[in-house]
Amino acid sequence: MPATFGQPWEPRDDVRITDVRAIVTAPEGIPLVVIKVETSDDGLYGLGCATFTQRWQAVVAYLEHVRRLVIGRYPGDIEDILRMVRFTAYWREGPVGNNVLSGLDLALWDIAGKRAGMPVYELLGGRVRAAADVYLHAEGPTPEATADHARELMDAGLRHIRIQTGQPGIGHYGAPPSADRYTWAKTPTGWRVEEYLRRTPALFARMRELLGDDVELLHDVHSRLTPKTAVMLARSLEEFRPFFLEDVLAPEFWDRLPEVRAASPVPIAVGELATSAVEAARLVRSHAVDFLRCHISDVGGLSAARRLAVLAELEGVRTAWHSPGDASPFAVAAAVALDVSSPAFGIQEGHVYDEAAHEVFPGMIDIVDGWLTPNDAPGWGIDLDEAAAARFPATFSGHDAWAAGVRAPDGALLAP
Amino acid sequence: MPATFGQPWEPRDDVRITDVRAIVTAPEGIPLVVIKVETSDDGLYGLGCATFTQRWQAVVAYLEHVRRLVIGRYPGDIEDILRMVRFTAYWREGPVGNNVLSGLDLALWDIAGKRAGMPVYELLGGRVRAAADVYLHAEGPTPEATADHARELMDAGLRHIRIQTGQPGIGHYGAPPSADRYTWAKTPTGWRVEEYLRRTPALFARMRELLGDDVELLHDVHSRLTPKTAVMLARSLEEFRPFFLEDVLAPEFWDRLPEVRAASPVPIAVGELATSAVEAARLVRSHAVDFLRCHISDVGGLSAARRLAVLAELEGVRTAWHSPGDASPFAVAAAVALDVSSPAFGIQEGHVYDEAAHEVFPGMIDIVDGWLTPNDAPGWGIDLDEAAAARFPATFSGHDAWAAGVRAPDGALLAP
Amino acid sequence: MPATFGQPWEPRDDVRITDVRAIVTAPEGIPLVVIKVETSDDGLYGLGCATFTQRWQAVVAYLEHVRRLVIGRYPGDIEDILRMVRFTAYWREGPVGNNVLSGLDLALWDIAGKRAGMPVYELLGGRVRAAADVYLHAEGPTPEATADHARELMDAGLRHIRIQTGQPGIGHYGAPPSADRYTWAKTPTGWRVEEYLRRTPALFARMRELLGDDVELLHDVHSRLTPKTAVMLARSLEEFRPFFLEDVLAPEFWDRLPEVRAASPVPIAVGELATSAVEAARLVRSHAVDFLRCHISDVGGLSAARRLAVLAELEGVRTAWHSPGDASPFAVAAAVALDVSSPAFGIQEGHVYDEAAHEVFPGMIDIVDGWLTPNDAPGWGIDLDEAAAARFPATFSGHDAWAAGVRAPDGALLAP
Amino acid sequence: MPATFGQPWEPRDDVRITDVRAIVTAPEGIPLVVIKVETSDDGLYGLGCATFTQRWQAVVAYLEHVRRLVIGRYPGDIEDILRMVRFTAYWREGPVGNNVLSGLDLALWDIAGKRAGMPVYELLGGRVRAAADVYLHAEGPTPEATADHARELMDAGLRHIRIQTGQPGIGHYGAPPSADRYTWAKTPTGWRVEEYLRRTPALFARMRELLGDDVELLHDVHSRLTPKTAVMLARSLEEFRPFFLEDVLAPEFWDRLPEVRAASPVPIAVGELATSAVEAARLVRSHAVDFLRCHISDVGGLSAARRLAVLAELEGVRTAWHSPGDASPFAVAAAVALDVSSPAFGIQEGHVYDEAAHEVFPGMIDIVDGWLTPNDAPGWGIDLDEAAAARFPATFSGHDAWAAGVRAPDGALLAP
Repeated sequence: MPATFGQPWEPRDDVRITDVRAIVTAPEGIPLVVIKVETSDDGLYGLGCATFTQRWQAVVAYLEHVRRLVIGRYPGDIEDILRMVRFTAYWREGPVGNNVLSGLDLALWDIAGKRAGMPVYELLGGRVRAAADVYLHAEGPTPEATADHARELMDAGLRHIRIQTGQPGIGHYGAPPSADRYTWAKTPTGWRVEEYLRRTPALFARMRELLGDDVELLHDVHSRLTPKTAVMLARSLEEFRPFFLEDVLAPEFWDRLPEVRAASPVPIAVGELATSAVEAARLVRSHAVDFLRCHISDVGGLSAARRLAVLAELEGVRTAWHSPGDASPFAVAAAVALDVSSPAFGIQEGHVYDEAAHEVFPGMIDIVDGWLTPNDAPGWGIDLDEAAAARFPATFSGHDAWAAGVRAPDGALLAP
Repeated sequence: MPATFGQPWEPRDDVRITDVRAIVTAPEGIPLVVIKVETSDDGLYGLGCATFTQRWQAVVAYLEHVRRLVIGRYPGDIEDILRMVRFTAYWREGPVGNNVLSGLDLALWDIAGKRAGMPVYELLGGRVRAAADVYLHAEGPTPEATADHARELMDAGLRHIRIQTGQPGIGHYGAPPSADRYTWAKTPTGWRVEEYLRRTPALFARMRELLGDDVELLHDVHSRLTPKTAVMLARSLEEFRPFFLEDVLAPEFWDRLPEVRAASPVPIAVGELATSAVEAARLVRSHAVDFLRCHISDVGGLSAARRLAVLAELEGVRTAWHSPGDASPFAVAAAVALDVSSPAFGIQEGHVYDEAAHEVFPGMIDIVDGWLTPNDAPGWGIDLDEAAAARFPATFSGHDAWAAGVRAPDGALLAP
Repeated sequence: MPATFGQPWEPRDDVRITDVRAIVTAPEGIPLVVIKVETSDDGLYGLGCATFTQRWQAVVAYLEHVRRLVIGRYPGDIEDILRMVRFTAYWREGPVGNNVLSGLDLALWDIAGKRAGMPVYELLGGRVRAAADVYLHAEGPTPEATADHARELMDAGLRHIRIQTGQPGIGHYGAPPSADRYTWAKTPTGWRVEEYLRRTPALFARMRELLGDDVELLHDVHSRLTPKTAVMLARSLEEFRPFFLEDVLAPEFWDRLPEVRAASPVPIAVGELATSAVEAARLVRSHAVDFLRCHISDVGGLSAARRLAVLAELEGVRTAWHSPGDASPFAVAAAVALDVSSPAFGIQEGHVYDEAAHEVFPGMIDIVDGWLTPNDAPGWGIDLDEAAAARFPATFSGHDAWAAGVRAPDGALLAP
Repeated sequence: MPATFGQPWEPRDDVRITDVRAIVTAPEGIPLVVIKVETSDDGLYGLGCATFTQRWQAVVAYLEHVRRLVIGRYPGDIEDILRMVRFTAYWREGPVGNNVLSGLDLALWDIAGKRAGMPVYELLGGRVRAAADVYLHAEGPTPEATADHARELMDAGLRHIRIQTGQPGIGHYGAPPSADRYTWAKTPTGWRVEEYLRRTPALFARMRELLGDDVELLHDVHSRLTPKTAVMLARSLEEFRPFFLEDVLAPEFWDRLPEVRAASPVPIAVGELATSAVEAARLVRSHAVDFLRCHISDVGGLSAARRLAVLAELEGVRTAWHSPGDASPFAVAAAVALDVSSPAFGIQEGHVYDEAAHEVFPGMIDIVDGWLTPNDAPGWGIDLDEAAAARFPATFSGHDAWAAGVRAPDGALLAP
């Protein structure tokens, strides 16, 4: 029986966590939250992603409660530290809290890799593939404009492309076309499901005409369908062989996904809005998805995501971790570490970070020929240049409101 | 079809939200978060509970993002405002965000009641009962001490009493006995499930001996059992006719509650850890509970709780809203408004607030003879004395860490 | 796209597997199979347990097919190497093949730990508990003799004890009483289920009388019941609060375990006869067990067992890894590494190895006061003294036939 | 009650098993394992197939443990002998062990037939049909080459033909095109599921064009799809009326077959990778298959397969026993004995053995006009010429590694 419960056991050596800090930076305008865990070992620290773009300030404030619980702990007790942080909240899971947990977890794995002198993927059992195949987004106001965008991506080596196009009432992506994102008053007409159900197969038909058969096409519904209209859309797209159809139902209705997936002749991808491993695991266990698409910075970090990858592997589900630019490169590194080490890998969402992001995050990995290949340096192999980060401060901005700009012609607000 | 989407429709009159603020106060030492919605109508404001004791600072920070989305809106569009706030977060549900939503919702219902000149229960369809029967907590280091406490409560008119007693490794409630809650080093031995499974029926047996049959006894497991040990405990208590057995499983395992409830010969009460209406609804719909025990300040306010009461009514489940002192009197008022207006009412958890709380919250309702009777004043009929509130500032304290102080003899952290 | 698939990718450094060998040794008379993976890095090798006591020679022969597939590979590609070995067999899973895989896997994790300079538990995310609580076996021809044995174990600090006693037709454990294990001719009467269903509650009653309440009692059925008699036994034991009831059904009937577990008022432990992660995962996923009891050397090594621990954690099931002396200390080390790092830990089966075993396996961990505490040395922290091993050669022996010596009075062979 | 358990009852006469041996031979280059059971009755012996091509040496070694358990037994106690061999292993099922059991079982049935002077099908209740309709494999690098091959088979009288064609990254069958099967470095590109999902309906379309409608076409997926892509493939082939679609999912995911079969508009055939009657029975009972395709030498011999045929008959499932050349003619004889005696027969897989095989196995049955007709001689009516067998020794070869030569473009190993 252990002599003390304070630590709560005698650590293997003397390294201790000395501080935990949040750094918020927005090199591309999107607020990114990074957690830095500092240790008593000179020069040894870890970095992790805790980004919640829409409510970044709450993440920073939450960390203040957590910080005092973690200082003094041995950084190798990752699991116990995370459980302690979770349980002290009493009301756990959900964004904000799980963003903090994710960032802390990723930072502790960074430290573990650095101490072992190994890239994190090797701590996970090593590679089962060399690199992660990536998809990027093509979008435009018309199918033709989307095809032009897609063609550029194909020229850059991409084999998988998500296609979206304009709909009445919204721009091409899902957000309102207006630059003034706090008001949706100027939209003359709203988004109509029937129109969408007509336009989307037409988009796919036009893409196949313009791009041919040898490219995989994906599409994101952005949560705006009901169980039956989701199946209707899926059936109408079957002949165009979509790689997957994303977010057909809002998370409020995920309990009905198993019926939708079973009736859909095309693969269903859901999960980016999961904010706990529990609800993500339910998606896998109940066969609600063909691809699990969680955001690693939201679902509990690597420790949560690798559990989900195990579950996905055991259930015959594939992973497609979310990462379209609202996560920092530490989240990308974690996703890719899992991608190359998990047999359950399906595809990886990607984002082409700009020059400013590269200044802030030296060592970050880039998409080359449509592949993301993990860094071989210890830990994530990525640093944070705090001076550069400070040059790109986060501000309150359209990101607070962005996600809820779409209304129907009758004025009803639609899921983001 | 509405002409504009900005408002998004023409409001019925000119009242507008002019500001939204958070006031944090701790008259009893427990940080309480109150949201105040101010309007353009002189003297018209609403108050709601957004308390997350363990992480109060994050709630305050989150509100800053929400505030700018709400100012300028017509306060009568409660549903649309709440959907807008939810959807703009993109990653929604969970504590922090839903605490903010709950506080905002309760404040808007307060305004609605004040504008109608009616107590909120009347906006819900009026009373189906006069008052809510309440249970309070009796606890002590030994069964005898617990019985003494329970006897006092019975003398005060209570007919339902939750009983807890000391366990090796923890105090009588569930937290460690140590005053120094950041360290658990002093605990000489930990909590053991086998010991607990022996002591709890013994506690009930002793209570029945000492208190007789004419009192309803409740018990809170605090999430520390597995599906099988939960059934074992339930079977061992059957002969003592507990009113209900609370929180037998941690929320991580709620998907296994339906099997536990089906195998349990005594009523199962769960829900205080739900942080979304979606997961609370799943508890009811899957027949995971006999009593639904959500925390109204966590689950989305009155708008969420009244939906849950509707579902409970339709499914033959009873309500037992959480309210043991980690919620402000606005949450109590909302619970009681539902209690008296919903056919699904089962029991109401109560807390005897101290003098300081009464100073801060003039008009708050008190338990009399074991009953909570709603205030007949418009809205919640409760005010917030901001000067008094300021006299009891919240501080970082043991509440940050309180919930995770219990470890097993092997050092493993237990669910809070 | 990677340039070559031969390796199949460029390894992180130059270390390569140079040989793989099986060493069979029987310091306690039980044949143990150890796999040693040697590398190009001077003095760097890994050791793992591949024991299949009853058919050890087949394991050695199987390894010969595998050996040539593995030489030349980078030892950090654990997952890819194991998948390759699995898939090349075409007919995979089952004992023999999975013993080889398990031994190879454990040896590769030993190498990973040594290269990282970390005990394996730290590669898994670190400890969530200090040590693993252990149960040992007490047995005797009569309940009184079993109690004497149990008392000795309690005196040695054990808190959990498995109790078995003699039954007509068999000795106290499960095997026939005869020393001549190839013939069962001398048994005058056979094993009868009705007799067993009477004697077992009597055994428990006597134990509680003699040992008191403050010890946890376990029992192993050894697969000899039907679904209904399993429930009958479980119900008859409820009042004695067994910690768990093991192997109530033979693996041929595991698809009926969920119904047995649901109807049993005491915890059900099954899994030691699982020979693939697939069937073990089904036990967890279908809620067939309260405790999962796989043999890590049979189910696919640490890589398989940690997946199962994740699944168990997500499903609210506890682990109780098999390890009663028919596994080498490398399997014990792997079990304990998982025990201290997995939140799903329930209990650990133990075995008190004799002096000879300590000679063969320097560094092996021992049970102290009923606890197994992991070694802090890199990898498993255990070596194999090949010269000592050679002094205890395995021979064909009663172990080939041991498990099937029990017949019913009508002559029907019973499950082992 | 029997007087002794040794035998364990008084045998009907004095015949005893005197030895059990394994003979490994590779007349076609594929290692085949035959078990020969010799008896005390002069000239009476039985022959059975225990082939595990990829790991033949382990089967031979395993038999050494079993041999001593069987010598001395009366050969007519087939069931009891097999149960005893199974149960003595303790860890039972899986390849190697079940190969041994299968070979032993088939050899004992051969003896039973010889002693009765009857072909085995007559011991099973006699014929319900005259012969078994057979399918063979046509394959080629292009659809046209496959069609040429298929045309030859049609000319030889075949009515059912399995069609496979080349895919980028692999040869026409499923294995890599390279002769050097230990390295996959030469594969310039890998196998892609999307490419396969496009090429396979194109293959069927071309076949129908070239071969017409009056031939049944089958296809083997070789375990490389997910549940959803399996359904996608099945839907895309519906218009070409495939007779069945084989092995759509790897055995790791068979629990998801019922959903795939239910959603598939074409018949699903699975089972060759089953290595126990338990898992094969689950396939039938859960309606995971339309055709059950077990390998009799892997699933437990005739004793297991006839139970499966009974279950298939009761559940409305058809049989299609595996036998493509990696089984010896004794397995073919057993399959055909079941085919002609079971109402559940669907189709029989066949292999055209070469001249060398005929030398080694005098009496083996051949496909004539697409039919396999059972031998009318006692037992299997097939002998083993041990001298001829010795002329074709098995060697370590590409068969050790054959099954895992296919990788995806990202380097990930694919199921064999």
